[in-house]
Amino acid sequence: MKIAVIGLGTVGKGLLSVIDRKGEGILLTAVADSKSAIISNQGLSPKTVLEKKVKTGLCGEPGLTAKSVIDTADYDILVELSPTNADTAEPAVTYIRSALARGKHVVTSNKGPIALYYRELKELAHKNEVSLRYEATVAGAIPIIHTLCHGLKGNTIKSLYGVLNGTCNYILTRMASEGLTYLQALNEARELGYAEADPAYDVKGIDAAIKLVILANTIWDMGITLKDAKVTGIDLLTSDAVRLAEEQESTIRLIAEAVPEKGMIRVSPRIIPKSHPLVVDGSLNAITLCTDLAGEITMIGKGAGSIETASAVLGDILFIYEKKE
Amino acid sequence: MKIAVIGLGTVGKGLLSVIDRKGEGILLTAVADSKSAIISNQGLSPKTVLEKKVKTGLCGEPGLTAKSVIDTADYDILVELSPTNADTAEPAVTYIRSALARGKHVVTSNKGPIALYYRELKELAHKNEVSLRYEATVAGAIPIIHTLCHGLKGNTIKSLYGVLNGTCNYILTRMASEGLTYLQALNEARELGYAEADPAYDVKGIDAAIKLVILANTIWDMGITLKDAKVTGIDLLTSDAVRLAEEQESTIRLIAEAVPEKGMIRVSPRIIPKSHPLVVDGSLNAITLCTDLAGEITMIGKGAGSIETASAVLGDILFIYEKKE
Repeated sequence: MKIAVIGLGTVGKGLLSVIDRKGEGILLTAVADSKSAIISNQGLSPKTVLEKKVKTGLCGEPGLTAKSVIDTADYDILVELSPTNADTAEPAVTYIRSALARGKHVVTSNKGPIALYYRELKELAHKNEVSLRYEATVAGAIPIIHTLCHGLKGNTIKSLYGVLNGTCNYILTRMASEGLTYLQALNEARELGYAEADPAYDVKGIDAAIKLVILANTIWDMGITLKDAKVTGIDLLTSDAVRLAEEQESTIRLIAEAVPEKGMIRVSPRIIPKSHPLVVDGSLNAITLCTDLAGEITMIGKGAGSIETASAVLGDILFIYEKKE
Repeated sequence: MKIAVIGLGTVGKGLLSVIDRKGEGILLTAVADSKSAIISNQGLSPKTVLEKKVKTGLCGEPGLTAKSVIDTADYDILVELSPTNADTAEPAVTYIRSALARGKHVVTSNKGPIALYYRELKELAHKNEVSLRYEATVAGAIPIIHTLCHGLKGNTIKSLYGVLNGTCNYILTRMASEGLTYLQALNEARELGYAEADPAYDVKGIDAAIKLVILANTIWDMGITLKDAKVTGIDLLTSDAVRLAEEQESTIRLIAEAVPEKGMIRVSPRIIPKSHPLVVDGSLNAITLCTDLAGEITMIGKGAGSIETASAVLGDILFIYEKKE
């Protein structure tokens, strides 16, 4: 199974180090970062590529581009791991379209294309008889898409509720446990590397809403995008609100919820009892699926991280590999 | 996809009612209970079979047996749902051997054969190029076997910890929340139908240990049986112990744990912090998998129930169906 990897940020580096350690049966034939690329149809050493990237800042030749990798390299699966652009999904969506049109499978961790062009890309994959898989776009290491599509086969999913943003969950956990204000907790999250310099994408609920849209489209083929979600962040939440919830054996979490029969696609801070399975601490993610047969199933795990997200990407690669065999 | 169902207790009835409602593509060609059977290669109505069972106590003709169904009926999958015999695994293991030897797939909810004869049955299935699936034997509705074998593909499972017996978890929850003694909580569980008249199998940790053995064999192919597990139940636990744990923001749960590198296969009451994902309330089950890439993944859901367990059986049937297509 030959793979070409586009994007060598946190997830890309994690994937290459995992393939180096345990990638039996996987041959890396091309890698591209934002400024260079390298192609070898005989196979590249993931370790050598990583070392070159660390030493020079580039993974390959400055003259080569991701586009040339996608159009000319020899691969079975395009592994698209470039950074998310939530407004246009570019350049990732163009990369994915090109690979699918060439009859190549695609595995991506990029939320943009799946949130904005789900139906189009799924149809393109179907037309070309290849797979488009995106486990890593939602909830990091938790195999939630796999569970929805395979593990709970036969069930009708009626609704879902999730804690889908680790940064917000960390801030809310610290406000509750230490009585910090929102700004104090945000600064702490920044110092620990959980929050970006501009935290708006996380704390205003946009990241959680994009993941909710991806889940809703996967389950119910709703064809919705971010603008169809009602989104309230945690940035206006006071310490008083958190304290009042705590006094009732409850706490506040940023909950993403999809209830199609009520037409509800919403992200907002909610008061929930502390004993509820969705009340996870720190930067964890959690998702509860309400089904017709299995009842409520909750999955909890790390929502981010280099190796954790690479785990989801690797799972998708191996799924395609086994189907091909 | 033709199925023959052996066993028409709680799970069998649940499965037939689910197939009646949403069993598209599944043709029921035979059903056997402990005293009768019915075969129709053109297909049976699940609803009619259920109605006859309720009215007469029998699903079919008293002269016909499960053995005759297994040896002569026309089916692709034997769905073996007879009651668990933890000492001998009979008659289920004989049924399963016969079906596998006939080149038929087997789906079972029966813990006995999988706990006692895992390797032999897996090898027999492999030799005959058919599937043996048993999602329903562990943790009811939670698709844990599927997640282990498929969703977390590429991961090495290092250890696992689980709350695998809903009866014990209910008793411990009530001892902590209401200050009940063990016997008071047990009586309450009996009144609600969570505990059997003879609760030893649950409260002495045997049921949890059997499920732990099944999980350990699935993950690490250890070839162990119940006698390899160190088992302590909850029946000697005092209210004082529970109260002391509560005073430290912790609580007591019956934890099944498998840590192969320490040679540990153990079920025992453990003190754990209330914020830990394994601390679930009431009759819920929970399992935490510790992996090399995905970190810790926890799954929570209903560990028992007619329709919930049927959901796991149906998932296995549909998995085989899709592979065949």
